[in-house]
Amino acid sequence: MKDIRGGVVAPAGFRAAGVSAGLKTKADSLDVGLIVSDVPATVAGCFTRNRVFAAPVRWSRGVARRGRARAILVNSGNANACTGPTGITDAERMAARTAERLGVPEETVFVCSTGPIGIPLPMQKIEQGIDRLADVLSPSGGGDAAAAILTTDTVAKEAAVEVVIDGSPVRIGGMAKGSGMIDPDMATMLAFLTTDAAVDREALQECLASAVSESFNRITVDGDQSCNDTVLFLANGEAGNRALTTGSPDWGVFRDAVTHVALQLATAIVRDGEGASRFVTVTVKGAVSAEDAKRAARAVANSLLVKTSWAGGDPNWGRVIDAVGYSGAEVEEDRVDIAYDGVSAVKGGMTAPGATREELAAVLAKPEFRVEIDLQLGNGADTVYTCDCSVEYVRINSEYLT
Amino acid sequence: MKDIRGGVVAPAGFRAAGVSAGLKTKADSLDVGLIVSDVPATVAGCFTRNRVFAAPVRWSRGVARRGRARAILVNSGNANACTGPTGITDAERMAARTAERLGVPEETVFVCSTGPIGIPLPMQKIEQGIDRLADVLSPSGGGDAAAAILTTDTVAKEAAVEVVIDGSPVRIGGMAKGSGMIDPDMATMLAFLTTDAAVDREALQECLASAVSESFNRITVDGDQSCNDTVLFLANGEAGNRALTTGSPDWGVFRDAVTHVALQLATAIVRDGEGASRFVTVTVKGAVSAEDAKRAARAVANSLLVKTSWAGGDPNWGRVIDAVGYSGAEVEEDRVDIAYDGVSAVKGGMTAPGATREELAAVLAKPEFRVEIDLQLGNGADTVYTCDCSVEYVRINSEYLT
Repeated sequence: MKDIRGGVVAPAGFRAAGVSAGLKTKADSLDVGLIVSDVPATVAGCFTRNRVFAAPVRWSRGVARRGRARAILVNSGNANACTGPTGITDAERMAARTAERLGVPEETVFVCSTGPIGIPLPMQKIEQGIDRLADVLSPSGGGDAAAAILTTDTVAKEAAVEVVIDGSPVRIGGMAKGSGMIDPDMATMLAFLTTDAAVDREALQECLASAVSESFNRITVDGDQSCNDTVLFLANGEAGNRALTTGSPDWGVFRDAVTHVALQLATAIVRDGEGASRFVTVTVKGAVSAEDAKRAARAVANSLLVKTSWAGGDPNWGRVIDAVGYSGAEVEEDRVDIAYDGVSAVKGGMTAPGATREELAAVLAKPEFRVEIDLQLGNGADTVYTCDCSVEYVRINSEYLT
Repeated sequence: MKDIRGGVVAPAGFRAAGVSAGLKTKADSLDVGLIVSDVPATVAGCFTRNRVFAAPVRWSRGVARRGRARAILVNSGNANACTGPTGITDAERMAARTAERLGVPEETVFVCSTGPIGIPLPMQKIEQGIDRLADVLSPSGGGDAAAAILTTDTVAKEAAVEVVIDGSPVRIGGMAKGSGMIDPDMATMLAFLTTDAAVDREALQECLASAVSESFNRITVDGDQSCNDTVLFLANGEAGNRALTTGSPDWGVFRDAVTHVALQLATAIVRDGEGASRFVTVTVKGAVSAEDAKRAARAVANSLLVKTSWAGGDPNWGRVIDAVGYSGAEVEEDRVDIAYDGVSAVKGGMTAPGATREELAAVLAKPEFRVEIDLQLGNGADTVYTCDCSVEYVRINSEYLT
């Protein structure tokens, strides 16, 4: 597996673009993006489980169900969520306009939106933006597309790899946006993966679901789940390989490569969390089940008290064991061990012998560290990536007015 | 029902005290408290459901099971949690010393601790404190006891009422401590209720459970559940009434009075949340079930994004409907209505006709307001009391070093 440049246009047969349509308050900000496959691509999608979901999510679920697509149109600056029947019509119009300009069927165009909730889309601006996107679409437009989908992100997030499948090179690329700690306004996580591999449709969906569960579903910033979260994967077969299935000899190579790209994008979201000063990996092992490990890891990673203590560089393991205790996971207090980057803090539910505050504080002072929790009850394990909650986070989210 | 003064010593036959034993870093802070019933009292208790629970919780559960008690000993400044076998022995020694000084059986003495986790108790200081408590115990010592159980609270929390039961006056008193938004260090919510009514033991437990579910279980500050949370209720029968049962004619009067005292204490905890600038009542109605209403109300009240928007005075209903959507409650987006103190913000899942940002912002500018969510699907309803999450909250919790 080789990391390469180029994001979503690294694989053969993809073009992209990003332009400014005037949706964002800051002039000239790129705010509409387009990814196009030169030929119909097999598609997979994962969508928010929020019961309140945006109009574009409704539309794109339909596209994903049909299994083949040509394009993904994305706007930032407006989530087109809680916008009623008008919002649904607007999402359809975005797909129709894009389809018309590309000369493809409208039911092969995904539509995604991200930004504030409850405000009708300025459709005239968006349609003008779509027209210009079609004009500037190019095999080197990945960077502009990645920039156009950002909201409060401070950096664009791209990744790509090349692997050998069936003796030939195959590429997987991706881009993502996520407010990580901030944003919030909602509606927040979008990621798009592309590959020139030919992949069986069911295998592609299984691959995406697996990669998402190892990456985007392992990051937590503030525990809120947006009504626009969408991950899409387009496989256009331009690499010329025999279509991959879950039984193919190189299936593991492909799946690992997709997971690698997804994980790079997911951790980039956490690192970019505004206000975040620390990137923290929370691992739980020794749980009765994987499900229990997940509960415990998420309780720790979502605990406001734990996250604020990290922001202060405080090795406050009391807040960690407390969160484990209320997580719902099976816990026997006198078996719990906790370490920070291998430095033991808790042994058998009590202060570890020889643990010094100075040594632990030195770990917590680092911009990146690992909190390791061993419940010593079974073989269940899980990992979550998160960040601290700083004064800056609250400042951004309380001063950011809708 | 008449509000009266006196807290836990308002009912007949109770004495209390609070002294400084040197457990807190600030010199002369009261840090051990004692409540004593002159005669054996029927008892009820509600304890944390955290799987990690402190040694005094283990001890006090045993006292509650036996059903009769004489005293409640409380220390602040140290939670006696995650302290292993030594912690268990220390809790027993605290009960034994108190029992010896009061001349009562040790199995009738509740023990509660609150403060930082994982540090062994300074038992010599505590035993000296117990001796002094026994010396100064008095029918007017409620205020000192209420002050002695505080940690990061800024004010003592007391309440009491008088009601007529069976034609005679009966009193119910209480005190509580809770860090509300802050503290965190953990281990956090304690409340003690007293009454001079005679109450059947099972009825007392049912009454307490009901009052707790209407009060302490309706407040949420940061969603963390401490390993020391304890609510105890002592009924000593000194009012001379026939023992109340759930079938007594005045049962409703009594239960309502207990709930009133508990709710006063619970809301006082939220109001005292350090860093909190707004007290918010979140109501959900029209849910498919009461359970669903509770899920939705809690998701909103615990959402960091919602709480930070309140801190900024921002009527960001998008974050509210988003939290309702991921709460797990049945939701049909196009039926959801949201109002702030009666000012409509959302109708049928969209911006309400005529809603102006100025009018909504005026509600959010108030130190106290109500967020009203109507799901329009059924008759389930629930209410939660909470506060905003300000920069000050994070500052306190990140700078407060263990």
